[in-house]
Amino acid sequence: MLDCVVTDAKIVNHTGIFEGEIGIRDGRITQVAKGISETTDRKVSARGKMVLPGLVDGHTHMEFPFMGTVTADDFESGTVASACGGVTTIIDFSIQPKGSSLLETYELWRKKADPKVCVDYSLHMVIREANQANLNQIRQIIRKGVQSVKLFMTYRRDGLLMSDINIYRIMKEVAKYGGVVGLHCENNDYIECLVSEFLAAEKTEPYYHAKSRPPEAEVEAVRRATTLAGFANANMYVVHMSTRGAMESVVEARNRGLDVYAETCPHYLTFTENMYRGLAAKNYVMSPPLRRREDKEALWLGLASGQIRTVASDHCCFTSEQKDLGKEDFSRIPNGVPGTEVILPILYHGVSRGLISLERLVQLTSYNPARQFGLFPRKGTIQVGSDADIVVLDPKKRQRLSKDNLHSRMDNSIYERITVTGFPVLTLSRGRVVHEDGQFVGKRGGGSYVPGRPHSVRPKDL
Amino acid sequence: MLDCVVTDAKIVNHTGIFEGEIGIRDGRITQVAKGISETTDRKVSARGKMVLPGLVDGHTHMEFPFMGTVTADDFESGTVASACGGVTTIIDFSIQPKGSSLLETYELWRKKADPKVCVDYSLHMVIREANQANLNQIRQIIRKGVQSVKLFMTYRRDGLLMSDINIYRIMKEVAKYGGVVGLHCENNDYIECLVSEFLAAEKTEPYYHAKSRPPEAEVEAVRRATTLAGFANANMYVVHMSTRGAMESVVEARNRGLDVYAETCPHYLTFTENMYRGLAAKNYVMSPPLRRREDKEALWLGLASGQIRTVASDHCCFTSEQKDLGKEDFSRIPNGVPGTEVILPILYHGVSRGLISLERLVQLTSYNPARQFGLFPRKGTIQVGSDADIVVLDPKKRQRLSKDNLHSRMDNSIYERITVTGFPVLTLSRGRVVHEDGQFVGKRGGGSYVPGRPHSVRPKDL
Amino acid sequence: MLDCVVTDAKIVNHTGIFEGEIGIRDGRITQVAKGISETTDRKVSARGKMVLPGLVDGHTHMEFPFMGTVTADDFESGTVASACGGVTTIIDFSIQPKGSSLLETYELWRKKADPKVCVDYSLHMVIREANQANLNQIRQIIRKGVQSVKLFMTYRRDGLLMSDINIYRIMKEVAKYGGVVGLHCENNDYIECLVSEFLAAEKTEPYYHAKSRPPEAEVEAVRRATTLAGFANANMYVVHMSTRGAMESVVEARNRGLDVYAETCPHYLTFTENMYRGLAAKNYVMSPPLRRREDKEALWLGLASGQIRTVASDHCCFTSEQKDLGKEDFSRIPNGVPGTEVILPILYHGVSRGLISLERLVQLTSYNPARQFGLFPRKGTIQVGSDADIVVLDPKKRQRLSKDNLHSRMDNSIYERITVTGFPVLTLSRGRVVHEDGQFVGKRGGGSYVPGRPHSVRPKDL
Amino acid sequence: MLDCVVTDAKIVNHTGIFEGEIGIRDGRITQVAKGISETTDRKVSARGKMVLPGLVDGHTHMEFPFMGTVTADDFESGTVASACGGVTTIIDFSIQPKGSSLLETYELWRKKADPKVCVDYSLHMVIREANQANLNQIRQIIRKGVQSVKLFMTYRRDGLLMSDINIYRIMKEVAKYGGVVGLHCENNDYIECLVSEFLAAEKTEPYYHAKSRPPEAEVEAVRRATTLAGFANANMYVVHMSTRGAMESVVEARNRGLDVYAETCPHYLTFTENMYRGLAAKNYVMSPPLRRREDKEALWLGLASGQIRTVASDHCCFTSEQKDLGKEDFSRIPNGVPGTEVILPILYHGVSRGLISLERLVQLTSYNPARQFGLFPRKGTIQVGSDADIVVLDPKKRQRLSKDNLHSRMDNSIYERITVTGFPVLTLSRGRVVHEDGQFVGKRGGGSYVPGRPHSVRPKDL
Repeated sequence: MLDCVVTDAKIVNHTGIFEGEIGIRDGRITQVAKGISETTDRKVSARGKMVLPGLVDGHTHMEFPFMGTVTADDFESGTVASACGGVTTIIDFSIQPKGSSLLETYELWRKKADPKVCVDYSLHMVIREANQANLNQIRQIIRKGVQSVKLFMTYRRDGLLMSDINIYRIMKEVAKYGGVVGLHCENNDYIECLVSEFLAAEKTEPYYHAKSRPPEAEVEAVRRATTLAGFANANMYVVHMSTRGAMESVVEARNRGLDVYAETCPHYLTFTENMYRGLAAKNYVMSPPLRRREDKEALWLGLASGQIRTVASDHCCFTSEQKDLGKEDFSRIPNGVPGTEVILPILYHGVSRGLISLERLVQLTSYNPARQFGLFPRKGTIQVGSDADIVVLDPKKRQRLSKDNLHSRMDNSIYERITVTGFPVLTLSRGRVVHEDGQFVGKRGGGSYVPGRPHSVRPKDL
Repeated sequence: MLDCVVTDAKIVNHTGIFEGEIGIRDGRITQVAKGISETTDRKVSARGKMVLPGLVDGHTHMEFPFMGTVTADDFESGTVASACGGVTTIIDFSIQPKGSSLLETYELWRKKADPKVCVDYSLHMVIREANQANLNQIRQIIRKGVQSVKLFMTYRRDGLLMSDINIYRIMKEVAKYGGVVGLHCENNDYIECLVSEFLAAEKTEPYYHAKSRPPEAEVEAVRRATTLAGFANANMYVVHMSTRGAMESVVEARNRGLDVYAETCPHYLTFTENMYRGLAAKNYVMSPPLRRREDKEALWLGLASGQIRTVASDHCCFTSEQKDLGKEDFSRIPNGVPGTEVILPILYHGVSRGLISLERLVQLTSYNPARQFGLFPRKGTIQVGSDADIVVLDPKKRQRLSKDNLHSRMDNSIYERITVTGFPVLTLSRGRVVHEDGQFVGKRGGGSYVPGRPHSVRPKDL
Repeated sequence: MLDCVVTDAKIVNHTGIFEGEIGIRDGRITQVAKGISETTDRKVSARGKMVLPGLVDGHTHMEFPFMGTVTADDFESGTVASACGGVTTIIDFSIQPKGSSLLETYELWRKKADPKVCVDYSLHMVIREANQANLNQIRQIIRKGVQSVKLFMTYRRDGLLMSDINIYRIMKEVAKYGGVVGLHCENNDYIECLVSEFLAAEKTEPYYHAKSRPPEAEVEAVRRATTLAGFANANMYVVHMSTRGAMESVVEARNRGLDVYAETCPHYLTFTENMYRGLAAKNYVMSPPLRRREDKEALWLGLASGQIRTVASDHCCFTSEQKDLGKEDFSRIPNGVPGTEVILPILYHGVSRGLISLERLVQLTSYNPARQFGLFPRKGTIQVGSDADIVVLDPKKRQRLSKDNLHSRMDNSIYERITVTGFPVLTLSRGRVVHEDGQFVGKRGGGSYVPGRPHSVRPKDL
Repeated sequence: MLDCVVTDAKIVNHTGIFEGEIGIRDGRITQVAKGISETTDRKVSARGKMVLPGLVDGHTHMEFPFMGTVTADDFESGTVASACGGVTTIIDFSIQPKGSSLLETYELWRKKADPKVCVDYSLHMVIREANQANLNQIRQIIRKGVQSVKLFMTYRRDGLLMSDINIYRIMKEVAKYGGVVGLHCENNDYIECLVSEFLAAEKTEPYYHAKSRPPEAEVEAVRRATTLAGFANANMYVVHMSTRGAMESVVEARNRGLDVYAETCPHYLTFTENMYRGLAAKNYVMSPPLRRREDKEALWLGLASGQIRTVASDHCCFTSEQKDLGKEDFSRIPNGVPGTEVILPILYHGVSRGLISLERLVQLTSYNPARQFGLFPRKGTIQVGSDADIVVLDPKKRQRLSKDNLHSRMDNSIYERITVTGFPVLTLSRGRVVHEDGQFVGKRGGGSYVPGRPHSVRPKDL
């Protein structure tokens, strides 16, 4: 007796598309077959729809303390938005409070998330300092399933900037245990200098946020980061990559034999810097900022060719009121935008336009992040034995991405004017329906922590 | 009741390494678990060994008529060598006899191979002419499972050279049905010119084979091919890629958004052009020829970074006697070397040296070719539902790659002086042991044709 | 007693700017000094102006038979336009009439040009066929001063297409004598194919001219050409380069050690493909066509960095009536636009915008082409001993580039709506004033043929 | 009446080769002609020889305090070596003593050099700190003719390391006045880290000097430097560039529109890292260290293609005894080797091998450095009006580059075992013979300071 069978499914995995039925019991997929005869508690018909593995959103900031405030979505509201967007796993960034150890930070985040999360989650760890205590605990947090460490090459004022030599040290340590280092790549010094120049010239509007963080600042930092990774013989990935130049630098690092990953975000695939000329400019303030059209086009090409490995939301949202912290000074606007609910529709729009294939969509949003962060094959695929994390997408459903239709606690949507064709209509998280037709129908705390398994280290250790 | 259980297995898939047991029934994998309680006919212990999915050798030429002779291995002797090297699927090149249609060629090859093959096989199709009859049958052969078409940018004398415009036409047609085009990339004109110059100067030794086919000839052709693929919006792959420059050109094509694949071969990963100075130079004559050390190093880096997708043998062997056809004229030496039996040991040697990881080895030799040619998930992975094609590798077994230890019909081995540590000791083809400890124990005709499924075509067709 | 002294001159050479006076006698510069005391026949005050070496326009087609008609400017009207634009030397393309030898062609062009040219001129030679007769005469025409040979990689219908192997042969021969090969780089086959497709779909408007000659067609051909030059160990240059990708390919060839030159034209620096949407689209039909904004920007960057060596006009003009030959079929519109008179103002506009320096302008338009084609130090610089070819530019003069102000025989100007600030107001050709304030004041036949000296060949010949 | 006439001269300028005679009066070239009839005090026959403009060695360290000692050559012995190697101008690095201002440093260096120099010289200025006082004096030293500022991205222990933001600040200031910034590009942090690791492991031999300064450290720094130059919109050049990767980064910066220069040195063109395995390893310790063969080859290609602009000696020599300061610790070995006397023979060897042309040699060693540092047309060419700085090279003279034949105060020669064919046999410095057949025949203090003229600044300032 099965708990659920998805029938008439056009199933899209990272390797191809096929028709069949999916049998589910105890939260896992137990059958993938042409016709399932076993009885079942519930049938979900997917006729005329597409059935994909639930998305793994590898980059979220729920309840994240940043720039003097805290992000608007907590683990509940945020993961409700995820569920309604077809995301069945988020990987959130735990960040050390002053004086906390890495392990304490891990525990703190578990305590914050466990009672609230509505879909499964895993964790990254932001390290603020390369002191010996932190270096010593890297091994331990990897054992806890936090196998990805994040470092910042900017944000000095917020105490996040990490020096080159310390990046190198942490990379070496993380690599030892099969973990991976993610980097926010922007050249801090150059940005600081430009910010000072603009503020000194009383150029305080959000428009100068973008001007003070030019593409070159990202490109330079990506190059430096990949060079350090080469020195340390470490795996690394570039988070929220936004420019053509950065992508070229990642590719160049691959030519030197490094297996560097890169992630981009839905907003870089949708908007350009023109948004900073509009009335709602402050709402588009994130770092790196929106870029030129040629960057946007290059990112889509990168998705098509496989040079960009993942798309994640960088869901990090602040209400209009919070954004007003920077009313007089663009550098004080809390950086970040929502996104976890729109990854799938934005990418599916790319499928409709012929920019990427459906299999690629699944690779970018589910299979690749699951593999990269050690969650595969539990997550990231529709196959026997995997968690029954499944999203049903209706390719004909038209939906305006307005704040009224989205589930975050945001009081506005940067996608307000955009209407897409193709939208998720049902989400299963470990076999339970958590979202149906725009309604969240799961429960607070229904999700669980899923530890990531580290990558195999170098064969000599075998 | 199972047919076979592999116990104590350190299982290496493309996604990672784990310990467990593999249960097999009716030629398929039915269980992958920590402990299998079901009874079984046979137990295979893999204690101290590694268990990998059987290799998919995507590039072989058995019974191949070429340069006035026919390759030394037929489908029997060739696939015996495959089996003993851990290869459980070969993809062979069918080639049109003068006047035959594509469908007739397909049938001819089936007739040649079916009664003899000792492991499973699939087929590519070489097209010699872009006439309407051939264009029309592309759709049909793809339906037969031949979803990869091969074109030559050289070998005019052998009637294989295809013009740019015809490459473009075929690419467009193949892409329509989700097939892929593989190209032998070398600039024909430049090579012809150099060959004439050398022969005119009475430089007839094998050494001039390499001199007349310089790296630049490959690089140029790869660029042209990827450009044509861009024009045609088609998938393509570069067969037997041998140079750093070619790899850079492939990467550059990816930067333009093309999902180009590249394959290299064990000999390019082992030898350099120095071999053409030796006494056995003729035995190393293949096209493209062996290259400089820096190319060899770049290819290994390409495997490490994932920029090269597959390693295949280009098994195309001619005996010393056959090689003597070019005794007086290097351009008459039949081009080709054996390789299907050494892919695994040569790559494992790279693992031992820390150049690539074990998972990468599986990706390069099994998972990627299976996916690329539509054989996944039946081939290319150890998972429930897949064919029980499995190879057991003993990481401590030392083996000299001498002709006495290899199973091809060759009278010599280009790897004669090389001793490796790490060698396959047992091969299962669809659940049956076909090779054990260097002995072929399968049977003639024991393998079957496995049709490739075409790639999904562009989403607009969904 | 001097013939002329230019006083109060802010002299701009390729190496810098300095103030001084220029003394001229017998058509040559005899003094460059702070104060010239010697008496003089005439004084030209350059107060408030800039004094540059006369431009060398390395790419013109006067009286050029092409696509079933002949260009609108003959050697008289064309060089009047040159003189009024500050150009004191043109290098025109002689082209073999069917059946004529290279030497006959050279003589024919001398006969056409000598009685009419109003400024000095030199010659390139278009070769249509790589037959032995032509190969044999290469040496001889180089001795006549025609040290640059031009080959086409497109225009099959017009009998100009040259195959790869023949390009290679000619390159080798030209290199032997220190000559250089210029190439029109566009992939013929791909263009032909697109043209057929558009015409078959009854897309006959000029807009499809551009669509049928995409950037990739140029990029591919540049790569092939530089590869062939590498094979032949020959100098080469890319004429009228129009895309970012082509420039990147040229640079890449330099990384391989080739000293490849590249030329671009004023129209690529001014317009984008948008012009093909306008009413006058036919007037903008040239090959390669106008490109995207990003290409235009990349070309300016190439001028700034020195990666592009020269700017020439590709002056090849057809009246509106002539353009109507392609009224029903864009592929029949005679390709070409005027330009010799606007090189200086268009580039000076780039100086005003801070895109390039004045010295760079002189390098691009005078020093570099003079050196490249063996005319330096007679042309290309203001120094003692050089020909007194001098242009005085008024940086404040505003001028609309309308047909009424230009001197070509054209009945329209593609620059009609453009008004520039900074325009040549006086031109000296070998010491004689030939243009003053928009009036041509020289005489028909006043110019002479200037033979180019070949480059030194490889040091082994010394 | 002339002071000197060079007869039968095969004159090589940067633009070509021609035969003629050179007339000299008062230290300047007054005639360059086929036959000079004017009487002369002295005739120098150059029959069978080549006559080149005297070399401008743009990178020397005479009497340079560094790593706890002072270089072995003072301005006398060093410039004697220069003269005997055909170098007629050196550009030496003045460096701030603790507490000295830039102007004081300039004066100090003038005082050191003026009484001793045997050929002409100009000066660069090393800046140690980006404090306001130093920034303020940049304008003044440029007016003194010191138009090139040098910054270090390494050597923290020696008080030379400059931070990114300060490099950026200085670049902006220098660019304002038309100066140029030269950078020693190596990533300090990574090197420090490797040095510590090696020393901790008791790996103290000179071999580890090279291992601790890997190619990647240079490549990364070049990228960072060119990025900063892009930010500052400044001219810059990379001193003593040693790797293929660095060259590629320079080229890439050009693609972005920067006019970046690069210099390499004779030792990188001659040796590879193998020298660190020999007994005399300590004598080859310089930074960056000697590299791989592929780097050496790439540098020669860069000279051939023009991507590398200059070759200078980085003459910075320490005796064997001085080198012993690092007997127990490779990081204490004073960094540097001699070279001013061998630039010409080493490059001419490249001419003989067909790697570069003679004109290119003149560009690299004379014309380009003269232009780059504002000394042209006084230096860098044989033309009327220029200083009579001339070197006569005998293409047949064989010479061992042993310490016995060289003129530096060194007690050994890193070129000891190398014998070249082609050597300077006579040097004229402003018309006076200063070297003849290996003998220095000039006088102490015979040279003068030659101020460099800054580059024209951006056209908006005109």
